[in-house]
Amino acid sequence: MFTEVFRLYEDREDVTLTTYVINEKGEMHGQGKRPAVLICPGGGYFNCSDREAEPVAMQFAAMGYHAFVLRYSTYTQGRDEFPDVFGKSIKPNPVTKHPAPVREIGMAMLLIREHSEEWAVDMDRVAVCGFSAGAHNTAMYGVYWDKPLVTEYLGVDKEMIRPAALILGYTLSDYIFMRDSVFGNPMDADFFKGSNTAFLGEAEPDEETLRSVSPARLVTDQTPPTYLWATSEDSLVPVQHSIRMAHALADHKVPFEMHIFEQGPHGLSVSTQASAVSQSQIYPDAAKWIPLVSAWLEKRFALDLPEKTPFEEMLEKGEL
Amino acid sequence: MFTEVFRLYEDREDVTLTTYVINEKGEMHGQGKRPAVLICPGGGYFNCSDREAEPVAMQFAAMGYHAFVLRYSTYTQGRDEFPDVFGKSIKPNPVTKHPAPVREIGMAMLLIREHSEEWAVDMDRVAVCGFSAGAHNTAMYGVYWDKPLVTEYLGVDKEMIRPAALILGYTLSDYIFMRDSVFGNPMDADFFKGSNTAFLGEAEPDEETLRSVSPARLVTDQTPPTYLWATSEDSLVPVQHSIRMAHALADHKVPFEMHIFEQGPHGLSVSTQASAVSQSQIYPDAAKWIPLVSAWLEKRFALDLPEKTPFEEMLEKGEL
Repeated sequence: MFTEVFRLYEDREDVTLTTYVINEKGEMHGQGKRPAVLICPGGGYFNCSDREAEPVAMQFAAMGYHAFVLRYSTYTQGRDEFPDVFGKSIKPNPVTKHPAPVREIGMAMLLIREHSEEWAVDMDRVAVCGFSAGAHNTAMYGVYWDKPLVTEYLGVDKEMIRPAALILGYTLSDYIFMRDSVFGNPMDADFFKGSNTAFLGEAEPDEETLRSVSPARLVTDQTPPTYLWATSEDSLVPVQHSIRMAHALADHKVPFEMHIFEQGPHGLSVSTQASAVSQSQIYPDAAKWIPLVSAWLEKRFALDLPEKTPFEEMLEKGEL
Repeated sequence: MFTEVFRLYEDREDVTLTTYVINEKGEMHGQGKRPAVLICPGGGYFNCSDREAEPVAMQFAAMGYHAFVLRYSTYTQGRDEFPDVFGKSIKPNPVTKHPAPVREIGMAMLLIREHSEEWAVDMDRVAVCGFSAGAHNTAMYGVYWDKPLVTEYLGVDKEMIRPAALILGYTLSDYIFMRDSVFGNPMDADFFKGSNTAFLGEAEPDEETLRSVSPARLVTDQTPPTYLWATSEDSLVPVQHSIRMAHALADHKVPFEMHIFEQGPHGLSVSTQASAVSQSQIYPDAAKWIPLVSAWLEKRFALDLPEKTPFEEMLEKGEL
């Protein structure tokens, strides 16, 4: 396994791509190209949670895919301290705010492409997987990857950065719905005002701005096949965000699969001890999103394996 | 993740420990010590198969445990060419033969212990996991870890190298049973004569020698709790080896769990595309040994997590 941290901007430590590249030059498929999953951890655009980084990469690596973790631009820029998101202390930061995070997914795709021979990555089969705000960023990429916001900024043809699939864990997808639904609860309202300032540079952006960052309102037939999962009890990012995204995918005939588990709070990650801070983040039912996404991915990402081993072929031909 | 290759002997390239150490200094259990699984790939004591190395490490890392792959002494000493095991070309090699492989598991345990603070390894919870000949080596360690063959050679107290559990995939456990059962089939007989020469230095060792390398005949109450799995169809290492080992564990009241799947050939490893050379090495039923061993291990290896997150604690105390 080749594990290394690459900077996306030479002069910044906070935006990085961590590789989990399967590079055993062995008997098995190690010699051939493998699909990959690019992971965007969540953290309300304040930070990138470790809980949604390496433990998730391990799951996809265990399925036989390369994994990459993207730490995109967030308010804290990787510093350990977490801002007082319920207070009014959040100040706009033009460097880390939208559209930096979504463009950085495109930059990560280009960085992977640049090394794709060396790392044996099948660039036609790179999925993007995110959680919470990272899922929002992933969904944003799903609707903007082919748009000037990303392609003109990067100066590349869209086919160079096309995602093969999206995987969205307890995503946020509709900022207008969020404005209209959460502002009844003062604590949530303060949290999202803070998050809006971090992500959009203002606490209460206008309708047009909110619409422009609402993937559920921007899906096209160019949005890639998508796997969604969430818990119906999520009290921070209501499950309606996943449902609205699924509705839009259905409207545009984009293939998708969605699993909504009844129990479990926001931010379960892999929902086992591998990602949990506490017992309260372990829900065995919700943890089934992993075997379910494995089966879903395999329909698109199955490794191209021959029917028989060389030994079996020889046996059959009577060469032994 | 900290991935590096350490030599067990300074002057040899072939005997190595590859680390898959979870070293995110993050929000979650990354700060605490974690249990570990030390993996011995199979390969008939001729080589160490890549198929039973990194893909297995990824499974245990995905469960939240550190993983280590031990490439122990084998006949080919890591060279790519595979000997003509069906011919008579195998010559004894005193450097790689028994008891080198079983002692090297002890050496690996000491190497891990030496770095256990740096890598945050819970040395009281290190399991050894092997496949085929690697499972035999693992079972040998299970019965010899506390005996002079290992402790005197290493010059350490047995408590320094005590294994917490064994995980045996399609193990070989009884060389006397093997001699008496396979020598009817000339191809198998030649294969095992070759393997005997590689492992024991002679094609047809005497009864006492065979007994001394038959873990199923050497289990004591000091043999650690054991998980076994195999397929009843295995035509290379018959399933009786697993059954005989389980019988001995039962006789000595050692806790164990065994899963014998009906279908599947020898050498399935994780039994998915992640370890397969060909479709013929993918058996979804047998692949269930992974979630089953995860549940079994968790009874012993569960991470020590608090009931609630710090955020939940604060909420409950009205501090938010």
